Amino acid sequence: MSADKTPVTVVGLGNMGTALAQAFLDAGHPTTVWNRSPGRAAPLAEAGAVHIASIAEAVADSPLVVACLTTYEATIEALEPAAAALSGRVLVTLNSGTPKGVNALAAWASAHGIRLLDGAVKNVPDAVGKPETLLYYGGDPELFAEHEATLRVLGGDTVHLGDDVDLAKLYEQAVGGTLLPALLGFFQGAAMVTKRGKSARSLVPYTVKWLEMIGQVLTPMAEEIDKRDYSKPFSSLGLFHEGIPYDAEIGADGDIDVSWHEPMHELLRRGVEAGYRDQSISALYEVITRPRR
Amino acid sequence: MSADKTPVTVVGLGNMGTALAQAFLDAGHPTTVWNRSPGRAAPLAEAGAVHIASIAEAVADSPLVVACLTTYEATIEALEPAAAALSGRVLVTLNSGTPKGVNALAAWASAHGIRLLDGAVKNVPDAVGKPETLLYYGGDPELFAEHEATLRVLGGDTVHLGDDVDLAKLYEQAVGGTLLPALLGFFQGAAMVTKRGKSARSLVPYTVKWLEMIGQVLTPMAEEIDKRDYSKPFSSLGLFHEGIPYDAEIGADGDIDVSWHEPMHELLRRGVEAGYRDQSISALYEVITRPRR
Repeated sequence: MSADKTPVTVVGLGNMGTALAQAFLDAGHPTTVWNRSPGRAAPLAEAGAVHIASIAEAVADSPLVVACLTTYEATIEALEPAAAALSGRVLVTLNSGTPKGVNALAAWASAHGIRLLDGAVKNVPDAVGKPETLLYYGGDPELFAEHEATLRVLGGDTVHLGDDVDLAKLYEQAVGGTLLPALLGFFQGAAMVTKRGKSARSLVPYTVKWLEMIGQVLTPMAEEIDKRDYSKPFSSLGLFHEGIPYDAEIGADGDIDVSWHEPMHELLRRGVEAGYRDQSISALYEVITRPRR
Repeated sequence: MSADKTPVTVVGLGNMGTALAQAFLDAGHPTTVWNRSPGRAAPLAEAGAVHIASIAEAVADSPLVVACLTTYEATIEALEPAAAALSGRVLVTLNSGTPKGVNALAAWASAHGIRLLDGAVKNVPDAVGKPETLLYYGGDPELFAEHEATLRVLGGDTVHLGDDVDLAKLYEQAVGGTLLPALLGFFQGAAMVTKRGKSARSLVPYTVKWLEMIGQVLTPMAEEIDKRDYSKPFSSLGLFHEGIPYDAEIGADGDIDVSWHEPMHELLRRGVEAGYRDQSISALYEVITRPRR
């Protein structure tokens, strides 16, 4: 441990919280840990952390408190007895949740004079502390600048998204919205090939390549959205519109349920009606941001 | 050119057809080309291809005919005058289309004694001929084995999917089903962050990482589907089910249309009703392959 390194208290020692505390220890930060069930603290205490069983005393031990509990509700509940001790200190939350949850915590923190940053670890616990590991944060940019060097201990790719404290959770939701639809697309593909005696496994390498290709078209499409200019399509909305009957063909024999495509088809039809047929498929952005009355 | 290399006739000189013909030329195959509008053939003729304006004469020039026209309908229409000349020869189609389209062509080919393989180039024209470029084929395995070395000229990653001639197009549809849902997920994310003054572009690197993560979970999920054992979930169906209200939260202020999630939520509810709450999200395979009566 080094005297010039900010002391940190880590609250919540699940797999992720433990990894966070270990990374601070490894980087030479004086590290205090707290967990509701104290047994989880033993390995960290052996590795050099100070284990304090009282939450108020644990947070009083450091100017910077990093909390990684299950939800924002659980965070407020755990920190409530330490609210006075936290006053004037910096709280960094790294749990999962929604923008609404962060904003509820921010109101609580503000009422107690606690300075809050909220972030997200975009990787598994084992990756914490590695140079390529991404964490992003939202909140007061001065607060971020003040503690950036300490936070960078958790991952080399540490990013400040902007001033709003709920931005990390907003980006989580914005990015995560792709998961279920993409998985369903894969399960439908698996249904198609297994029906023909092929394994679902046989579809994986081609789908992985396809997802890479999708990743590559996002940059030009995002630029179209940012310019709100869809006039030079790489792939036109009309092309997807023409593909609508093929989805019906997939489900035509009745043993694959393709009904989940219907509202996507409706969005394509609304896009064509709104005059985007020969424009980029990214013009669907305009369709979903101007909902039908 | 080399006497031991199979002569090839390439029919249809769009960007992809031109790239295919050029790859055969580069590999030393005697190459004959045909296109409806003959002007497209000039650069290839200069590079050493034989240009024949009559389709029947063009196909008669080689034992192997590779066709890359816009659709299967266009392929039959273009080849009809050459049906007699094609009899006993091998036709390889590499256009886009659906299993239904391939099967229509296969019926036509069979009626004329033409041996058919159908494939798909899983890349852009510029990538044709490169060692990493993937092409997959469906059809008679002996026919594939006979011409595999020649076909490999088009891409080093040349794969035979199975005996059914429509398998390449089936895999195209099975893989492609992920595209529109994944893009819509991204456009919705873009709507969320642009509403907060951030650029759509700012979302791209995180979404690309997320798509990579999705690619990584497909192998275990495909294995669950192949074993039809969802009992050791990495990510449970119940977890997605609990997430349903968050989608409503995204659309709650009314300026993002999230209605396209509704049937996906319905599938999750049906999954929970069918007892898959604590099983893997891949159990949705069972839900979509057992449609509601």
